Amino acid sequence: MVDGQRGELVIAGYPLEEIAERATFEELVFLLWNDHLPSASELTTFGEQLAAARELPAITREVLEAAAAQKAPVIDALRMAAGTLSLVAIGESAIAGSTRDAVVCVARFPTIVAAYWRMLHEEGPIAPHHGLGHAANYLYMLFGERPTEARTRALDTYLNTVIDHGLNASTFTARVVISTNSDVVSAVTAAIGALKGPAHGGAPGPALDMEFEIAKVSRAEGHMRGILERGGRLMGFGHRVYKVRDPRADVLSRAADRLFEVDGDRQLFGLAREVERVAIRLLDEYKPGRNLRTNVEFFTALLLHGLGLPTDLFTPTFAVSRVGGWTAHCFEQLAANRIIRPESEYTGDSTRTWIPVERR
Amino acid sequence: MVDGQRGELVIAGYPLEEIAERATFEELVFLLWNDHLPSASELTTFGEQLAAARELPAITREVLEAAAAQKAPVIDALRMAAGTLSLVAIGESAIAGSTRDAVVCVARFPTIVAAYWRMLHEEGPIAPHHGLGHAANYLYMLFGERPTEARTRALDTYLNTVIDHGLNASTFTARVVISTNSDVVSAVTAAIGALKGPAHGGAPGPALDMEFEIAKVSRAEGHMRGILERGGRLMGFGHRVYKVRDPRADVLSRAADRLFEVDGDRQLFGLAREVERVAIRLLDEYKPGRNLRTNVEFFTALLLHGLGLPTDLFTPTFAVSRVGGWTAHCFEQLAANRIIRPESEYTGDSTRTWIPVERR
Repeated sequence: MVDGQRGELVIAGYPLEEIAERATFEELVFLLWNDHLPSASELTTFGEQLAAARELPAITREVLEAAAAQKAPVIDALRMAAGTLSLVAIGESAIAGSTRDAVVCVARFPTIVAAYWRMLHEEGPIAPHHGLGHAANYLYMLFGERPTEARTRALDTYLNTVIDHGLNASTFTARVVISTNSDVVSAVTAAIGALKGPAHGGAPGPALDMEFEIAKVSRAEGHMRGILERGGRLMGFGHRVYKVRDPRADVLSRAADRLFEVDGDRQLFGLAREVERVAIRLLDEYKPGRNLRTNVEFFTALLLHGLGLPTDLFTPTFAVSRVGGWTAHCFEQLAANRIIRPESEYTGDSTRTWIPVERR
Repeated sequence: MVDGQRGELVIAGYPLEEIAERATFEELVFLLWNDHLPSASELTTFGEQLAAARELPAITREVLEAAAAQKAPVIDALRMAAGTLSLVAIGESAIAGSTRDAVVCVARFPTIVAAYWRMLHEEGPIAPHHGLGHAANYLYMLFGERPTEARTRALDTYLNTVIDHGLNASTFTARVVISTNSDVVSAVTAAIGALKGPAHGGAPGPALDMEFEIAKVSRAEGHMRGILERGGRLMGFGHRVYKVRDPRADVLSRAADRLFEVDGDRQLFGLAREVERVAIRLLDEYKPGRNLRTNVEFFTALLLHGLGLPTDLFTPTFAVSRVGGWTAHCFEQLAANRIIRPESEYTGDSTRTWIPVERR
C-alpha cells in the first residue's frame, strides 16, 4: 500500500518502518510470497533453496561474457542473462514450476550482477559463499571479502525498502506477461526491460553527482542557489507520489546514519547531510508550499555509495531487490488470473486503397 | 482498427482484404513503421537492411544450442535468443538506436526460429539466402530449398494477416516496457514472454488436431455431434471479439484455397473444408443465434500445415509476423510517450507488528 498523501508505505501488512530494519531480505521475500513471516524452520528451508540455486549455469555465464566483450550496460547484461534462467542448471534441485523460477531468479540476480561487474573489470567472478545469506553474498561476490555485520544490515535494509511499490511500470509489465499464463522467468525478464528505462529505474545517481560537484560544505548554498535561480531542479528532492516525506527516505536515512557511524566515507556523509539541510531550506524559499523533501533516490545513492557500489550498479541492485516484488505479483496474478489487454481506439484512416509499388 | 461487430480489420489505413494478399511482408512492416507504403527505392533499401541483418551473432547461436540441449520449447528459445539481440553482430551496419533494434528483430526472428528448429532435430542451421525475400528466406532456412512462388505468397499472406491486432497482451507489454524510455529489444523480448502464454498465442494447433482425429469425411458429423452433445467446444470456431465472420479467416481461407490448388495435402484440405461446412451447420443447430464462424486459428493451422510447418512452429511463426506490429507500436509510443503505470488498490492488512523469528 502506497499512501502518498500521508507518506505511508505498507509491505504485506507491515508498515515499512516496522519491518525494513529488522528483517533479512530472505524474510521479506518469503513474506511477500506467503503473506506471513517464515518460522525458523521455514526460513532455514528457504535459505537452503536460495543457496542451492545461486550458482550460474554455463550458458548464463557465456551470455555475460559476450555482453562484457561489448561493454554492455549492467542492466542489459542482467536482462539477457535473466532470460536464460528458464534453462535448468546441472544438479538443480527438484522444486518445479513457478516456485522454481521465482527461487532461481531471486537467488541468481546477485550472482549475475556481481559476476558481470567483475567480468567488466577483467576480474574473475567469485562463486557464492554457502555460509552467507543473500545480502552478504552479494557484497562478497562483488568484493571478495566477507562483509561486516553493519554493511550486511545496511544492504538488507535497502533491499527491503525498495522490494515493492504498487503497480509501477516494471511490476505492471510482469503482471501483464504472467496474465497470459506465461512463466515467471518471462515475466521477470520483461520487468527488467521496463526497469531499465530512464523514466523508471534507469537513471539513478544524479542525486549523488550533485554532492560530488559541490565537494565542500562551504560551496553548497551557492551551488544550489545557482541551480534554482536558473530554474533548474535539485536532484534527490521531491517525489511524484509522496506529497509529504517519503517513508523510504526516513528508513534509508537512519540506515545511512548507522552505516557511516562505523564504516564508509564520513566526509561525504557529512557533506550530504549538510547539502540536504541547505537544499530543504532553499526549496522552501524558492518553491514555497511545495513541501519538497529528500527522496528515496538521495538516500539510496548515499547508502549504496557507502557500501562501495559504483553508480552503474544502482539500477541493477534495485533489480536485485525488486525481483522479490515482481515474483510476488506473479503469484498473486496467477492465483486469480484474468488476461490484461486494454481496449484501444484507432484514430487513423481506414479507406486506403492498394497501389502497386511501380506506381508509388 | 478492430471492429468486432462489423467484422472489419484495418491495417494502417488499409482494410485487411485490400492489402494482405498483395503486399510482401517487407512492405507491410514498412507501412506500419512509416504510415505509407514504400516506393520502389525505399523498398530496395529496406530489403537490403533486412538482408544485412539476418545472420545471427555467435552468442545468439550459443543460446539456441544450450536451449536445444534441453529441448526447450521453440518460443522459449526465441525469447532467450531475442534478448541477446542488443549485442551487436560483427560487421553490423551503421543504423542506430530504435531503428537498428527494430530492423534486427524483424530480420532475425525467422533465422532464430529456423536455426533452432533444425538444431532440435540435429540438423545444421542453414544460412539466410541473399537472393530471397523475408518469407521465402524463412521457408528456405527451415527446409533447405527455395520455396515455390505459391508457397512464398501463402506465407506472406499469413504474416501480413496477423501482423497487428489492437492492444492484445503482447503488444500492450511492448508498449508498457518502451514507455519507460527503455529499448526496442527489451520491449520485443518482453512481448514474446506474453505471447507464449496459453491464454494468448501459446496454445495453437487444436483446430487441426480435430481434423486429424476425424481423419475421414464420413466421420465428421458423428465426431463433432459427440463433442457438442457432451457440452464441449469445437476448436477453430468462434472468437471473443468478432461477432460476425473474422476478416482474417476470410483472407486465410482464400490463401489456403490457392496454396492447396497447386501444393500440399489435397486430401487434408478437402477434409478440413468438409469439417468446416458440417461444423457450422451443427453450431447453428446446437448454439442457435450465436453465429459461431470459422476463426483465424482454423485457417492458420490449415495454411501453416500446408506449408509444411509442424504445430510446434505455429506460435513462433506468429511471433515472426507480430514483431512487425510490436516494433511499430514501440515507435508510436516513443513518438508521444507517457509512462504506463496504473493505480492500484491495496486490500490487505496494514497494521501488522514485527515478531522475531524465534517467537513465530
